[in-house]
Amino acid sequence: MEMEADQFKDFGKAMIDYVSSYLENIRDRRVLPTVEPGYLRPLIPETAPEKPDNWEDVMSDIEKVIMPGVTHWHSPRFHAYFPTANSYPAIVADILSGAIACIGFSWIASPACTELEVVMLDWLGKMIDLPKEFLACSGGKGGGVIQGTASEATLVALLGAKARAVNSTKKKHPDMKESDIVSKLVGYTSSQSHSSVERAGLLGGVQLRSLPTDDSNRLRGATLEQAIKEDVEAGLIPFYAVNTLGTTSSCTFDALDEIGPVCNENDVWLHVDAAYAGSAFICPEFRHLMKGIERADSFNFNPHKWMLVNFDCSAMWLKDPSWLVNAFNVDPLYLKHEQQGSAPDYRHWQIPLGRRFRALKLWFVLRLYGIENLQKFIRKHVDLAHYFENLVRSDERFEITEEVVLGLVCFRLKGDNATNEGLLKRLNGRGVIHLVPSKIGDTYFLRLAICSRFTEESDIDISWKEVKETADEVLAQK
Amino acid sequence: MEMEADQFKDFGKAMIDYVSSYLENIRDRRVLPTVEPGYLRPLIPETAPEKPDNWEDVMSDIEKVIMPGVTHWHSPRFHAYFPTANSYPAIVADILSGAIACIGFSWIASPACTELEVVMLDWLGKMIDLPKEFLACSGGKGGGVIQGTASEATLVALLGAKARAVNSTKKKHPDMKESDIVSKLVGYTSSQSHSSVERAGLLGGVQLRSLPTDDSNRLRGATLEQAIKEDVEAGLIPFYAVNTLGTTSSCTFDALDEIGPVCNENDVWLHVDAAYAGSAFICPEFRHLMKGIERADSFNFNPHKWMLVNFDCSAMWLKDPSWLVNAFNVDPLYLKHEQQGSAPDYRHWQIPLGRRFRALKLWFVLRLYGIENLQKFIRKHVDLAHYFENLVRSDERFEITEEVVLGLVCFRLKGDNATNEGLLKRLNGRGVIHLVPSKIGDTYFLRLAICSRFTEESDIDISWKEVKETADEVLAQK
Repeated sequence: MEMEADQFKDFGKAMIDYVSSYLENIRDRRVLPTVEPGYLRPLIPETAPEKPDNWEDVMSDIEKVIMPGVTHWHSPRFHAYFPTANSYPAIVADILSGAIACIGFSWIASPACTELEVVMLDWLGKMIDLPKEFLACSGGKGGGVIQGTASEATLVALLGAKARAVNSTKKKHPDMKESDIVSKLVGYTSSQSHSSVERAGLLGGVQLRSLPTDDSNRLRGATLEQAIKEDVEAGLIPFYAVNTLGTTSSCTFDALDEIGPVCNENDVWLHVDAAYAGSAFICPEFRHLMKGIERADSFNFNPHKWMLVNFDCSAMWLKDPSWLVNAFNVDPLYLKHEQQGSAPDYRHWQIPLGRRFRALKLWFVLRLYGIENLQKFIRKHVDLAHYFENLVRSDERFEITEEVVLGLVCFRLKGDNATNEGLLKRLNGRGVIHLVPSKIGDTYFLRLAICSRFTEESDIDISWKEVKETADEVLAQK
Repeated sequence: MEMEADQFKDFGKAMIDYVSSYLENIRDRRVLPTVEPGYLRPLIPETAPEKPDNWEDVMSDIEKVIMPGVTHWHSPRFHAYFPTANSYPAIVADILSGAIACIGFSWIASPACTELEVVMLDWLGKMIDLPKEFLACSGGKGGGVIQGTASEATLVALLGAKARAVNSTKKKHPDMKESDIVSKLVGYTSSQSHSSVERAGLLGGVQLRSLPTDDSNRLRGATLEQAIKEDVEAGLIPFYAVNTLGTTSSCTFDALDEIGPVCNENDVWLHVDAAYAGSAFICPEFRHLMKGIERADSFNFNPHKWMLVNFDCSAMWLKDPSWLVNAFNVDPLYLKHEQQGSAPDYRHWQIPLGRRFRALKLWFVLRLYGIENLQKFIRKHVDLAHYFENLVRSDERFEITEEVVLGLVCFRLKGDNATNEGLLKRLNGRGVIHLVPSKIGDTYFLRLAICSRFTEESDIDISWKEVKETADEVLAQK
């Protein structure tokens, strides 16, 4: 027999208890698993069962099969990458989303799915004081949408920019072939931008130039201006630029207030990628970091990183979504409906056709935390980063390599890269805490990101003790 | 205060009860909402609250704010599009996925997330008797991956094909510029393939030719062969073809056993899109519909459509994923790890960087239904489609326009399109059942898809009664 409602209630409630216990006790687990590639296959049958298993057996296999191979992203000992969000309200919202299970590709396919998203993106935009040109409630062309990931937002913006540039070039040179235009398009990003920006260029089949940064690892307006000038002289067509607010390597902020005017003057679509840092803009004291945002064509940040809304929820705003909507608008009869035009059909705003009811988790999180607690959460993480920074500074063997602005601390042992590579390898090998490295120029360093919503000062003390003791070992061995 | 564990348990369990009651009583709700665009905004505040709301208030807003605007995809009265999946085991699996909340972009980022996916795609591949070249357990290059949607699978396959064709053309003509090669690439699809195929061509920046079908709406091998011949003579480079198994308009199957050899002989990447129909291949009696699959380079179907795994879970297999992995491999230091190469890093197999732990829901559904119940589910839907077909055939005013093969019935009132457009408009306006139309050539028709897992013969009787009575009205008015 398939699972019926009564069994579901037992199973679902047992799972609620299990995940609550998992999360509340997560710091007791080793953050990095010790399994080797291929560990899982021998633990389960080679084929799916003919007859149904019991849900109790599935429950007990979680600890046997899954947990030994889980990297615990929500442990206070997890300091790798950037945070990914996880909260109780978002988990409950996803239960509802899973039950409604509508595919919101058009307004009529479930009006609530589209309309809640429109309004939630307005709520969120207001929370970070985004210029009203980006908000649907302003009554203009602009508006927000939930993308799956920041990579998709970057690609979507690039494709919109490409459509706009092809269109305007055709107007100027009606005899030019589209493939010739595309081969002349050139976009810009900094050497410090996320790998997904370079990948968007590869996927979109256009040239992207990686521009050098200044001594503080920031892309500056003059650098971009010079590059555009060179390219125009070489017969190319500048069309797109990505400005990163909060780079992955070091949480550095490109000079948006310089870059914006250069883009606007040169008809270059400006996309602002604040995937991690954007959540901090809900606190007024961090909004100076987005100075110049009014010049952007599109803006993106991930509430699924640092604002407690479970993945996937990447918020993107566009001043003029029509470049996207018109460029990739394929409209078969079975997707048409009578209210077309009076509400967005979000399928035109994204790469996939299908989409889940993701606005629910944004709604639940915003309501059940309230702006006040979300701000507290951000501020606490920033404070904890500075707390760790001070611990590092208190030990003369170490150095801080980048200014600590938000929740990321970049540090290293003074000396050569090999010593620091040894330090990281040993740290991750011990498995008490988990970090990943980065490198800017020739300098290899360690990144410690504050990730978990459970992290307290006492956890940071443990992480620092672990770093210090491991450094003792590494230096002793030398 | 933010939500704590005890509150979460109460809220989560209340939600489990709510969604169980929602689903078990879903047929009592009007399938299509009566709201107008803009209905939702006045129902909620203009901004997010400063202080947290109570979860009880959020719960009670579901019926007030959300449900009035929901199109109930899981109602037995919902016959639009194709089904989207929804099951109790999948909903519970997503609770666990939400709590672990890892981002499985690389093996080390959570080994369980990658490894369960590899093995589940093997389980699923074996269930439909996919040639072993597609399976990871064969030890070759091939393997499966969960994509978000079939649209992404089509695009990913196109990008892999593009990389392969650019590579092989460069070998033959080392002096040819990449942009010149890309401008000569040409792909093929049928006039009946899904709109996302055309869109993949637009997104990927390559030409796709839409080829005519035969009298049964099938793309035939000879048609493709002729097109390739013409294009080669015109100096173009054929590189990609999409073969649809189960078109959206009429659930028609292209002649895969003819198309495969043509593609293989001409070095054209063959992608097989069985988004809806693929789930049926778990029943041996439907596997003749995928005859010739061994010729394909990539194959895709959506367990999130018709195999009870909630969206998003689009299963894709590739014989040689290296075209994708190598073409778009951007590998910054912070994403590198020591086990690279000994297990897939799925970020290279897809458009986005981030990915949820989606294999859990496949695992839960396969185990808690068992192959036997999944087969029963498919067969029941096919039987219900034939049951409706017979009701239509029993009424001389109607005609069946396409052979009923799986769970879709295409039908119309004999006579002109306008009458049928009137019939559909009135049907959807009454709101008891929901259908969408399609058109092949000049013939407009109605599509009735069996969608809900709750559907019984008595539900189909109601749907038919509704169609018949509405037809009475429309014909009386004429």
